[in-house]
Amino acid sequence: MNIEEIRRIFQNAPFISALGIDLVSAGDGECATKLTIGSRHLQQDGFVHAGVQSTMADHTAGAAAGTLTGSGDIVLTAEFKINLLRPARGEALLCRARVINPGRKLMVVESEVYCLADSTETLVSKLLGTMAVVPLRDP
Amino acid sequence: MNIEEIRRIFQNAPFISALGIDLVSAGDGECATKLTIGSRHLQQDGFVHAGVQSTMADHTAGAAAGTLTGSGDIVLTAEFKINLLRPARGEALLCRARVINPGRKLMVVESEVYCLADSTETLVSKLLGTMAVVPLRDP
Amino acid sequence: MNIEEIRRIFQNAPFISALGIDLVSAGDGECATKLTIGSRHLQQDGFVHAGVQSTMADHTAGAAAGTLTGSGDIVLTAEFKINLLRPARGEALLCRARVINPGRKLMVVESEVYCLADSTETLVSKLLGTMAVVPLRDP
Amino acid sequence: MNIEEIRRIFQNAPFISALGIDLVSAGDGECATKLTIGSRHLQQDGFVHAGVQSTMADHTAGAAAGTLTGSGDIVLTAEFKINLLRPARGEALLCRARVINPGRKLMVVESEVYCLADSTETLVSKLLGTMAVVPLRDP
Repeated sequence: MNIEEIRRIFQNAPFISALGIDLVSAGDGECATKLTIGSRHLQQDGFVHAGVQSTMADHTAGAAAGTLTGSGDIVLTAEFKINLLRPARGEALLCRARVINPGRKLMVVESEVYCLADSTETLVSKLLGTMAVVPLRDP
Repeated sequence: MNIEEIRRIFQNAPFISALGIDLVSAGDGECATKLTIGSRHLQQDGFVHAGVQSTMADHTAGAAAGTLTGSGDIVLTAEFKINLLRPARGEALLCRARVINPGRKLMVVESEVYCLADSTETLVSKLLGTMAVVPLRDP
Repeated sequence: MNIEEIRRIFQNAPFISALGIDLVSAGDGECATKLTIGSRHLQQDGFVHAGVQSTMADHTAGAAAGTLTGSGDIVLTAEFKINLLRPARGEALLCRARVINPGRKLMVVESEVYCLADSTETLVSKLLGTMAVVPLRDP
Repeated sequence: MNIEEIRRIFQNAPFISALGIDLVSAGDGECATKLTIGSRHLQQDGFVHAGVQSTMADHTAGAAAGTLTGSGDIVLTAEFKINLLRPARGEALLCRARVINPGRKLMVVESEVYCLADSTETLVSKLLGTMAVVPLRDP
């Protein structure tokens, strides 16, 4: 998929629009995204919810995989593992994902999520996962 | 924490309220939750986003761990792994989580997410993860 | 594969024979194995090495998947995640694995490893993983 | 721990000696190891067993964590996730591990395993995991 098709994946995914995850760049098995942290992203102690970080890391990884598939295919998450390294609190999250093994049917991906606070970026979570490439008609 | 304290974790977590994840039951290292699927939960192909399932599985597991901690402690996700077994489409998600190893500082947890469609419940994802128990003042 | 074919997977895998992992039972998406703990299985502090537990949990899960495939297919581990719940020390390890999602190309599996010490079985590790089913000629 | 103490972890771990996993270098949160592939490392189809790769990736990651701990502490694997990217066949495995989050009690680590065949190194597996740092007397 080209950058316009990737952009449409962000626009046409209501959960991603609702969270405010924006596409920054995509191409050649890589993707970067950004999210401005608001109170709606928090858990009960005032930190960004693990689910927000997971969603961002997963979706960005899926888009990185999408840059390597044909437009007749869709990308579905088969599984992922994420380590939350420290509580995340700040102004924004930045995510960078890349495909580390571009198989025809399975793509292994990794993502890093950074939290921007007081002009400093800190790695807050890391994902390692597997995306399934599936024909559009047969998910 | 008792059921009222667990309930407050759901009410005081803006991301969980926004998603519409409701507490069904909690106690003795277990927790169950429910979510009515709406269009805001979907990804670009009309399925429930992996991030919604992950958030629900993670938060429910955290609450299961919370039933075994004192009220001076908070529970933070250290890491989790989730397998998405099949595309999820239907009316509601149901999640059941339990602690499989109740350590003092680390609790190993698992969650299962079921999708309810046409009166049938199908297992759609499974999480295995680790929760860190941290004193309230020192996250 | 039937029980005899599964048995051959244990006999023809030199690493499994060398470790002394024995097939106990197999069928219908399930498998059980056993290992008598010896000093060769230990790490530097006298506990069973995480790698021994991982190998046993992975191989038993692969065999569980194998009970559901045709004899023209082989089963390869795509990925797994394992939680080591506590240091393992005792006389034997017992492992039980089962397929929780029997896909045609991917099977999601889980395994539990128990340590037998002083006539008591304790859960020491839990695996959640994905097996790829691949035609014999095209691994 | 310094390089000599790390070296002792390899010598005093019978499972690691038996597998032939050799320390190449260690320091500053990093470690590298090597293994010459023999028939005893294989599974039933002639590939290096996932358990061998897991053991190597796990132990090397534990040693990387060990370079950052005091000598009164031991490092135990809490959990790890490994993706097996492709069947591994060749002359040797090389592993490089590093700590990506050096916590006082938990260290998040990653390892990459490369297979050397016909003078070419190929990435065959990737691990993301968590090591627990535990006082010597209280594992």
